Amino acid sequence: MTIDHDNRFKIFWEFFIGILATVVAIEFPLRIVLGYEIMEFHAYMNAIITLCFGLDIYLGFNTNTQLQGKWVTDKRIIAQKYYRKWFLIDLLAFIPFDWILCIWSSNPTSYALLRSIRMIKVFKMFNYRKTWMHILSFNDSIIRLGVFLYFIMLITHWFSCGWLYIRSDEDEILGINDYILSLYWCVTTLTTIGYGDITPDKTKISQVLYTMIVQVLGAGTYGYIIGNIASVLASLNIAKAHFIERIGKINTFMKAQDFPITLQRKVNDYYSYLWETRHGDDDVNMISNLPESFRLDFAYHLNKGVLEKVPVLKDADETIIQDLALRLHPHVFVHGDTIFSEGEKGHKMYFIQQGTVEILQKEHGRVAILSNGDFFGEISLLLDTNRNATVRALDYCDLYSLDKKSFDGVVSQYPEFEK
Amino acid sequence: MTIDHDNRFKIFWEFFIGILATVVAIEFPLRIVLGYEIMEFHAYMNAIITLCFGLDIYLGFNTNTQLQGKWVTDKRIIAQKYYRKWFLIDLLAFIPFDWILCIWSSNPTSYALLRSIRMIKVFKMFNYRKTWMHILSFNDSIIRLGVFLYFIMLITHWFSCGWLYIRSDEDEILGINDYILSLYWCVTTLTTIGYGDITPDKTKISQVLYTMIVQVLGAGTYGYIIGNIASVLASLNIAKAHFIERIGKINTFMKAQDFPITLQRKVNDYYSYLWETRHGDDDVNMISNLPESFRLDFAYHLNKGVLEKVPVLKDADETIIQDLALRLHPHVFVHGDTIFSEGEKGHKMYFIQQGTVEILQKEHGRVAILSNGDFFGEISLLLDTNRNATVRALDYCDLYSLDKKSFDGVVSQYPEFEK
Amino acid sequence: MTIDHDNRFKIFWEFFIGILATVVAIEFPLRIVLGYEIMEFHAYMNAIITLCFGLDIYLGFNTNTQLQGKWVTDKRIIAQKYYRKWFLIDLLAFIPFDWILCIWSSNPTSYALLRSIRMIKVFKMFNYRKTWMHILSFNDSIIRLGVFLYFIMLITHWFSCGWLYIRSDEDEILGINDYILSLYWCVTTLTTIGYGDITPDKTKISQVLYTMIVQVLGAGTYGYIIGNIASVLASLNIAKAHFIERIGKINTFMKAQDFPITLQRKVNDYYSYLWETRHGDDDVNMISNLPESFRLDFAYHLNKGVLEKVPVLKDADETIIQDLALRLHPHVFVHGDTIFSEGEKGHKMYFIQQGTVEILQKEHGRVAILSNGDFFGEISLLLDTNRNATVRALDYCDLYSLDKKSFDGVVSQYPEFEK
Amino acid sequence: MTIDHDNRFKIFWEFFIGILATVVAIEFPLRIVLGYEIMEFHAYMNAIITLCFGLDIYLGFNTNTQLQGKWVTDKRIIAQKYYRKWFLIDLLAFIPFDWILCIWSSNPTSYALLRSIRMIKVFKMFNYRKTWMHILSFNDSIIRLGVFLYFIMLITHWFSCGWLYIRSDEDEILGINDYILSLYWCVTTLTTIGYGDITPDKTKISQVLYTMIVQVLGAGTYGYIIGNIASVLASLNIAKAHFIERIGKINTFMKAQDFPITLQRKVNDYYSYLWETRHGDDDVNMISNLPESFRLDFAYHLNKGVLEKVPVLKDADETIIQDLALRLHPHVFVHGDTIFSEGEKGHKMYFIQQGTVEILQKEHGRVAILSNGDFFGEISLLLDTNRNATVRALDYCDLYSLDKKSFDGVVSQYPEFEK
Repeated sequence: MTIDHDNRFKIFWEFFIGILATVVAIEFPLRIVLGYEIMEFHAYMNAIITLCFGLDIYLGFNTNTQLQGKWVTDKRIIAQKYYRKWFLIDLLAFIPFDWILCIWSSNPTSYALLRSIRMIKVFKMFNYRKTWMHILSFNDSIIRLGVFLYFIMLITHWFSCGWLYIRSDEDEILGINDYILSLYWCVTTLTTIGYGDITPDKTKISQVLYTMIVQVLGAGTYGYIIGNIASVLASLNIAKAHFIERIGKINTFMKAQDFPITLQRKVNDYYSYLWETRHGDDDVNMISNLPESFRLDFAYHLNKGVLEKVPVLKDADETIIQDLALRLHPHVFVHGDTIFSEGEKGHKMYFIQQGTVEILQKEHGRVAILSNGDFFGEISLLLDTNRNATVRALDYCDLYSLDKKSFDGVVSQYPEFEK
Repeated sequence: MTIDHDNRFKIFWEFFIGILATVVAIEFPLRIVLGYEIMEFHAYMNAIITLCFGLDIYLGFNTNTQLQGKWVTDKRIIAQKYYRKWFLIDLLAFIPFDWILCIWSSNPTSYALLRSIRMIKVFKMFNYRKTWMHILSFNDSIIRLGVFLYFIMLITHWFSCGWLYIRSDEDEILGINDYILSLYWCVTTLTTIGYGDITPDKTKISQVLYTMIVQVLGAGTYGYIIGNIASVLASLNIAKAHFIERIGKINTFMKAQDFPITLQRKVNDYYSYLWETRHGDDDVNMISNLPESFRLDFAYHLNKGVLEKVPVLKDADETIIQDLALRLHPHVFVHGDTIFSEGEKGHKMYFIQQGTVEILQKEHGRVAILSNGDFFGEISLLLDTNRNATVRALDYCDLYSLDKKSFDGVVSQYPEFEK
Repeated sequence: MTIDHDNRFKIFWEFFIGILATVVAIEFPLRIVLGYEIMEFHAYMNAIITLCFGLDIYLGFNTNTQLQGKWVTDKRIIAQKYYRKWFLIDLLAFIPFDWILCIWSSNPTSYALLRSIRMIKVFKMFNYRKTWMHILSFNDSIIRLGVFLYFIMLITHWFSCGWLYIRSDEDEILGINDYILSLYWCVTTLTTIGYGDITPDKTKISQVLYTMIVQVLGAGTYGYIIGNIASVLASLNIAKAHFIERIGKINTFMKAQDFPITLQRKVNDYYSYLWETRHGDDDVNMISNLPESFRLDFAYHLNKGVLEKVPVLKDADETIIQDLALRLHPHVFVHGDTIFSEGEKGHKMYFIQQGTVEILQKEHGRVAILSNGDFFGEISLLLDTNRNATVRALDYCDLYSLDKKSFDGVVSQYPEFEK
Repeated sequence: MTIDHDNRFKIFWEFFIGILATVVAIEFPLRIVLGYEIMEFHAYMNAIITLCFGLDIYLGFNTNTQLQGKWVTDKRIIAQKYYRKWFLIDLLAFIPFDWILCIWSSNPTSYALLRSIRMIKVFKMFNYRKTWMHILSFNDSIIRLGVFLYFIMLITHWFSCGWLYIRSDEDEILGINDYILSLYWCVTTLTTIGYGDITPDKTKISQVLYTMIVQVLGAGTYGYIIGNIASVLASLNIAKAHFIERIGKINTFMKAQDFPITLQRKVNDYYSYLWETRHGDDDVNMISNLPESFRLDFAYHLNKGVLEKVPVLKDADETIIQDLALRLHPHVFVHGDTIFSEGEKGHKMYFIQQGTVEILQKEHGRVAILSNGDFFGEISLLLDTNRNATVRALDYCDLYSLDKKSFDGVVSQYPEFEK
């Protein structure tokens, strides 16, 4: 039995391991550089980390994985994919080099590099990206920026520890204040501000070389951040930007052609409405871009509410409603627009999704007011008569229309429905 | 009775409150840091601010608000939206903590944070953005950049005050010069120039930490500005850029193919004309992108001037003119172009919006010159004859054409017009 | 009589005035700051400048100007446009404040600002941009960047002079070395490097404030440059970038689908050919985007060379060739492609613009080899027979085809040609 | 006989010359600045370099070159192109100025500039770009960035040597430590960090001027890098970005319309599948954008595997398979989709490229399971009957369909196949 990819415990576990790996990545280099003792606390901590990282390996072999869009539960395939991707990193992070060194060597502090191998676990953060994107339903570029900022912080920390290590004399005892000054130097350099109040000792080549590395990498990452923030911000509201550009163009045009102010206002209000109710997305457009397989599902979910209110369809088969749903066409009418006029040839029936319309007859004036969930013009689907009333929008109206041809096409397929 | 969103007083009031909030945001932290006395002047100022901010809350409950593109006047709905959005901020800015502290405490200066809560009002600037965009008819990205620069200035001010606060000893008396030096440090850091002539005292961790915060935030905002200026500049003349790109492409092509210089000039002059008269926008294109509801209105406003000059249409019904307007098709002709030739079959009538044409007949040579507001070829709409003259453009000509089919379609709908 | 906009002298004059204005913009502030004497040389120089700037005003009233794409020679309209745009600047630059001050005042050096008004002439550079774009046929964005760099240099110079002015004591005598150090400070600050080896005297608020202004403006312009260089570089080879992207996509696709190497090479070579011969532009595409008026001209110039080689068209009227030119359709064939096969129905005649083809007959094998300027398949335009040979490309072949329907359409319009 | 452009030796030689030129570009200026002796080692090195650069000229005259997409082997044309492009640089790099100076002058070190001419060879790197792009099949923008970083490194090195040269006194003996400090200064400046711990001696104008040059160029290149890294990163995953944007849009839409979670998951899984199997590229789309000449080749290579498994086509002519291949149409079906239903009119035959389907009959239930390489519905191509079974996808299925009309069209052209 394997763990499902959507399992709550799995998500929590990933979060927990992420925090643990972060703690390791921060605490280990600090411990090595500041050189404080391996106290009892550290022994316990090491034990917990080793245990959790071991458990993580076990879970890695038992969690569903996605292959070509399908979720695989076959343990053999899971193991294969795990071996190829994360097993080595998980294993290296699991091995408690600290303890092994304690047994083998009398002076474990000198094996700094070997002991810091454990920090490698932090790179599994890249793996968790996908899960979090799913859970938090964030934009992918925000997550990417987040992961990037996370690693910038870690790298700043590591650079600071390195600077402390290279700067300090052998027998100096360093405290947290030294670390903060080191971090200060690192931040000043990475942001390219470079006060120059802390600089490498020119007589020690190692310090000069180290500074150069930090500067070059710092300038690179800084450039990367700038480029990224700009592009993330751009991608966040690309839909709105397109929308605003369109309105801007229309407004420029209307001004250039001296359109009356009332018309300009009307157009602007209309676009505000369009944005607030559907974010510039167009139902029809959206559905037509989908693969065939999903079009029916989408149309059904969008339109079934509208259709189910029609009495004659209440007891109809679901497949009929699905078929009709795919054939509905959305319209938006503005206050005052005439939807159809008395005496016209009618070919369409309308469903009101949202808004209010009035039914007018030349002889009787306003006959009725219809609103959300109502429908009108249904006679034209059955008989070939002229419209017997005028319908006018009293409000912004989201209507769906169904034309005679589509209706006849659907009905002819379901002979039992024709009664 | 509620205040209309386009009310002049409301716009003035927003402007006034904006200035007041800015003054508060600048003066309050300065007063706290420099520690000057709460004199009579401040008492009066506080009273005025409290009064105005109170009035602003009252107005917030009584101003029309936009919901899904519709302007709402129902006070209940206005209040609901106001509670959800700005009420808390307005309330916090309204409460005169200064006075309350004066009553409760003997040493009010120590409650720096509590007193500076009032500055929160400055965030209402975001709310005014929309109004100003409407009034000043600026591009949205310019406004965004403006708001951003405004907050950059405020943040620089706040950072400077903070630096002064952290740097100064308890009993030092600070003057405006100290503030300017502090501002200087802040600007030097935020622009990432970092002279390093003023740096934190390394023995005081608070100063080092504060510097790091300013550096990190400074580098971030700086990157953001760079990205933003570039994109605002790009968006400002996107239409022109497209236009220039098109001309550039044509020029490259003409050069590569060794076109005669005179033709190259002619093409370039034509595009200059196109740009200066219609900014690369195309009437037909613009209208076809509009929702159905507005197409008629747009076409009518664009073309009615042209149509009303036709004698036979002078007394015609407005609906006929509207219908015809929607069917006009714009053309541009260059000096020397033949619009139609004698003897051709004619299907279109032309209206001259701007420019000059000459009417030529094989037998008589130039018969007439027509210009702005004139029309020609009207016989072809009524009779099925050949053109009895050649028409040639003497100039850049903006013409509208109306073809027989459209005309007949419109006329047939209005039997009384057929006389 | 007015000066034509393409007049050589006018272009030279603009260039000369540009240099003069630059000299003024550089020399005037230096003279004021370094305080060197107004020697005889300066008197002569002033006289020349005044003379030339005066002449420039005269020419401004007598040079053709472009209005709505048309070149205007009417002096009244020219003067109107000149008054509205450049007259004030030209006038201010013309007035020799130096001399006037010499007469009025005993200590002319103190009126620094008044004397430097002349530098305003440098802004006419913006006006020359269009001429230079025309002459040098540079990309507009390169010119924009050039103008921008020019002003960056001037601003750096002005900032340096200002720094020298603010820094220096009253009675200090400054030399060119002081200017260079000032320039050094300015460059260090504007590039945001900020060594901090030259910083404002903290006791003099004017220096601190001046430094802040330079820093803020410097950071802004720097950001602008970065954004601009990037976008100019992007726009320079946008055509190539699109082309490379397309090839990249096809290559990825071919690799993913394991296409044979020889086919991959063939495709890549084909695209190299396409790029080198027509820079990714497509004749047909280019022409179809043009306004109607130019389509005929373009097609004629592109194709007449091909058509004039056909014997039967040699004596044909130019209008026939024009009409046929518009109906030619370009094709590219790769080595080995069969253009048509023996026995097929033929509807098209082909003209070889560039390349070699072989004519094969089943019975006789290779019958002929045709190359640049030749044509084949002409029988199919006249008679309704099957192809009597196979034609195969031996090389990359740029062919134009003319189909029977187009040919018949053209011929029917010219009855005298049908003989 | 000339060397082929794809010759292995040629690629290796270019790589070798590239390394040699890099060594020269690094070692020569160092030798001049640090002033170490021309030992025996250098004599040998010089000899090798002269030899190799000479050989490179010889090879330049004997390597195929590409002209208008065709590979030219004619030595005269190769030489012509070589003279115009690289001959001068190769020649200058070939001449051993060192030896000539040794003979002519007693103090060769003073001719620094003349001796460093050899470094010019490094610019041939630009020429190798194309080869490497071909070999490593990297994205063009990565290569461009690589070449750019390479030159940034060289320029940093050259700037450092220049700084050392300008800074040092005549008779000072410089070591590698001095070079490292010089490099440190250069990196600090180019990254715009500017500590200011090493600054020019203000009394020496040459140092001040040199610093300014480095600063200005440094700021420019830095801006260029930032712009470039951002655009390279963007171009690298433009396909993925488009894909993610599309999914993002659909997800937003589904959430806004309250679609059931299971449908949302299904849609997301489907898009994962689409991405992993075909990277968002669409076969049909890809082929329709190709020039006619390649469409047949592409379609054949994509589909022949599918077609050759059909028994009746096994012995068919290759041209038939090619013709059929061009007419196949790809489909993707999701688990549970019905491909066709029993009793429907059938017009298409299906080939399974990947996936599993089940054949169901109303009377017998599941009749068969078909998978990769199988096909079904073939009867509908031959007879005009209704489907005798329902086919449902059990999995993601990549199918190709062939409809009756296409099949008939192909078959009618090959009468011998109709048996």
